[in-house]
Amino acid sequence: MTGSGTPLGPGGEFDRLRAVFRRLGPRLRGAGDDAALITVDGAHLALSCDLAIEGRHFRLDWLTAEEVGWRACAAALSDLAAVAAEPLGVLAAVGVPEGRDGEFLERLMDGIARAADATGAVVWGGDLVRAPHVTVDVTVVGRADQPVRRSGAQPGDGLWVTGLLGGPRTAVSAWEAGRTPPPDARDRFAHPVPRIAEAAWLRDHGATAMIDLSDGLVGDAGHLAAASGVGLVVEAERVLVHPAVGADEAVVVALVGGEEYELLVTLPEGFGEAEGFGRRFNLPLTRIGGVAVGEGVRVLRDGRPMQPGRGFSHF
Amino acid sequence: MTGSGTPLGPGGEFDRLRAVFRRLGPRLRGAGDDAALITVDGAHLALSCDLAIEGRHFRLDWLTAEEVGWRACAAALSDLAAVAAEPLGVLAAVGVPEGRDGEFLERLMDGIARAADATGAVVWGGDLVRAPHVTVDVTVVGRADQPVRRSGAQPGDGLWVTGLLGGPRTAVSAWEAGRTPPPDARDRFAHPVPRIAEAAWLRDHGATAMIDLSDGLVGDAGHLAAASGVGLVVEAERVLVHPAVGADEAVVVALVGGEEYELLVTLPEGFGEAEGFGRRFNLPLTRIGGVAVGEGVRVLRDGRPMQPGRGFSHF
Repeated sequence: MTGSGTPLGPGGEFDRLRAVFRRLGPRLRGAGDDAALITVDGAHLALSCDLAIEGRHFRLDWLTAEEVGWRACAAALSDLAAVAAEPLGVLAAVGVPEGRDGEFLERLMDGIARAADATGAVVWGGDLVRAPHVTVDVTVVGRADQPVRRSGAQPGDGLWVTGLLGGPRTAVSAWEAGRTPPPDARDRFAHPVPRIAEAAWLRDHGATAMIDLSDGLVGDAGHLAAASGVGLVVEAERVLVHPAVGADEAVVVALVGGEEYELLVTLPEGFGEAEGFGRRFNLPLTRIGGVAVGEGVRVLRDGRPMQPGRGFSHF
Repeated sequence: MTGSGTPLGPGGEFDRLRAVFRRLGPRLRGAGDDAALITVDGAHLALSCDLAIEGRHFRLDWLTAEEVGWRACAAALSDLAAVAAEPLGVLAAVGVPEGRDGEFLERLMDGIARAADATGAVVWGGDLVRAPHVTVDVTVVGRADQPVRRSGAQPGDGLWVTGLLGGPRTAVSAWEAGRTPPPDARDRFAHPVPRIAEAAWLRDHGATAMIDLSDGLVGDAGHLAAASGVGLVVEAERVLVHPAVGADEAVVVALVGGEEYELLVTLPEGFGEAEGFGRRFNLPLTRIGGVAVGEGVRVLRDGRPMQPGRGFSHF
């Protein structure tokens, strides 16, 4: 989901979005979170969509049909996790070239349905068209009675992240270099798991702001900082790097690699239940920095500023 | 919207959909209407999406950027009209090639927003990616407290249609032959108007079943007949043909031309307020046949069976 009434972090992609949003003016009602948060007749809903196109977001020699479907649906569901919503259903708009409208299409739809089913959501329908490249847009709808927004971080909060970072970027780098990625890095790219239950737990344990890592840790931290009107400090050496990431580039890949679908969350200073989270979900929850008065993201490595480069641009 | 637990009419596109739906099994919960009808915490919602891709659904030498956006959004909104829902908001997932990410993109988004605004809906957000061809998927959400379904037609009902048919197909045929389409046929293709208020009026005047004309009159009548478990009789000479359609092919174009976004509706035998509809909306509402015991669609011309050919396939 990309849509904003509240500020976005820096970058060319976001300059373009700002121009689009300016033009829409009052007709745009999004609140700048990962999912649009709306209320209809007393029902509090979160909605988001994620568009993935062959050649840009995946390649068919990288992924199976099921994985293409799973990944597109999981990416959209991750936007619901980012606001701590409970997935209800999905619409799948799918375009396929001639020759991919039989078994391939059925398996792709099966991947979408399995990703939805894994979070308790169902497939409500969609659209099916002929297209020059495999095209998948999944729209997700969830219940969001107590959403966590990007905008609630307070100076003094701790900055935390779930999981081990860098796996998806490592897989893509291997493919792009003509190598076979390490299986567990490949799995992080092909089979991301939206952190739905983890997000609800974090909300129930006091999360003040949250975002999912789709643009990369530093990029998404920038969006959260801008939305909350605070500064964030990331201590790079605290970030847990996926073991498949090559040691020479580990920290940079973890800081800027996108498509992680882990959660970046701010929690009150006194939060001390990371071990309980880890046991419950078999997933690390790691403090990687804090929230300060100010703006933007400062990345420190062993106490000295570092410039990790740009995150992944979907655009 | 394409999604079905209830029967679809005949055709290769629909065979493919049936295979996909079989595979999804109980994970698919759509009810087979133009829009998915769901209830969340007491709120009755209708959702649909429409995916349009450059080269397949439109060409950039046919339409302006605004028209591409308007048309994609109007097509999705027309699915809400088909179930007599009230549009609330839209998500727009847009992909554009390099070089179309400035003014072109802003104007495309403006077209989406204007189509939404014209029905009282707002833009909640969306997704923006780089794509090899201009790609637009619009998801619409509406309130559907009293939806009209495809499945309610009863033997003895009259079969009615709004508007003048054949304009969009005439425009496309002209472009494909290298000619400039008549301006009002072009406008019917480039600037379709979802029949939102008309649908609410029809619901309030007893509509028993409804569908919008996206696949062509005969094709969509087949879906309605299958969903209702009835037969439909279309008297071809009653169909009002758009004046831009060439006289030699008028009836066939009106019967099978797609992308009309007019409404096909069944109304009780005693319905006699077509003139009031016409005055209110400045749009004809024409009885073109009736509902019978049986199945499928019989097209008669001056009382004799005719075979008008296939409708437009999106696939």
